Amino acid sequence: MRKIVALDENEEAILTAGLRSKKLKKKEFLLKEGQVCTANYFVLKGCLRMYFIREDGVEQIIQFAIENWWITDFQSLDWQQPSRFYIQAIEGAEVAILDRTHLPALCARLPQLDHYLRLIVQRAFAAAQQKLFLIHTLSGEERYHHFNDNFPQFIQRIPQYMIASYLGFTPEFVSKIKTRRK
Amino acid sequence: MRKIVALDENEEAILTAGLRSKKLKKKEFLLKEGQVCTANYFVLKGCLRMYFIREDGVEQIIQFAIENWWITDFQSLDWQQPSRFYIQAIEGAEVAILDRTHLPALCARLPQLDHYLRLIVQRAFAAAQQKLFLIHTLSGEERYHHFNDNFPQFIQRIPQYMIASYLGFTPEFVSKIKTRRK
Repeated sequence: MRKIVALDENEEAILTAGLRSKKLKKKEFLLKEGQVCTANYFVLKGCLRMYFIREDGVEQIIQFAIENWWITDFQSLDWQQPSRFYIQAIEGAEVAILDRTHLPALCARLPQLDHYLRLIVQRAFAAAQQKLFLIHTLSGEERYHHFNDNFPQFIQRIPQYMIASYLGFTPEFVSKIKTRRK
Repeated sequence: MRKIVALDENEEAILTAGLRSKKLKKKEFLLKEGQVCTANYFVLKGCLRMYFIREDGVEQIIQFAIENWWITDFQSLDWQQPSRFYIQAIEGAEVAILDRTHLPALCARLPQLDHYLRLIVQRAFAAAQQKLFLIHTLSGEERYHHFNDNFPQFIQRIPQYMIASYLGFTPEFVSKIKTRRK
């Protein structure tokens, strides 16, 4: 957070007191379809994915989050509706939890928090807009290389079939592309 | 904005002074591919669309904005990169312009602005996540009806071929669906 807004020691203490941390085992869930999302999650350690179950029963991943990324379902969080998504740890992980109920008091004491969170969400939204652009302008193979070049740290630690799900193709297609590039 | 955060008369005056308005003719652009986006736009009157040109030369719409909606390319705005998108008035329109260069001073005087803008962007991001969900879980016809039921005000005033572009199918497909429902 200090990369984006200035925080003195006192403010840092306020922020830390407003968060709680949680350790997750591999495959443990932070959110399941049908539950109402109660928090925004900041990844301290490990890797998480957000996905839903398509009509044909296949898991469709829409977001990954590694260290220093936020992840949540804003539709469910802001409107307190049952979620359509799952948020799950891909590997052992630890998250800082920013509870919905703590946020107003925290923002009142730390006005920078609104500013920081606004920039974070803007980046996530911008990434979603770019993803739509890439889907329509790059071939599957180009999209894989684009992801590979821009997010090498994800490619290294995330199982290939999950990368395939995120990019919208089959694991076999990813194998084929990787073989071709070698 | 008053629907989301409290503003007294003095604060309202600060906000108004920080914005400028612009009238747009039908088909006039606020942003073109290759330009660096300088502002966030709030629609006072009329209807705008954001789109890009696909590799096959077809226009792909990713967002509409009518009265009381914001529209911008955050990737270009926040990182000051050339945009991949066009923002264009579909009909005669008027927008309030929140200039990037004015924003820090405005947020310093109106801390609610960060809070308000954060919630607005969260809603837009949530909508983008939901759109991905709908693409993978509803048929084309179901998606049209979903859009129709949730955004009737868009269906009424936006040309059919633009709705088709936004939903990712051909204008002929929309005609077929509409005939079937009558």
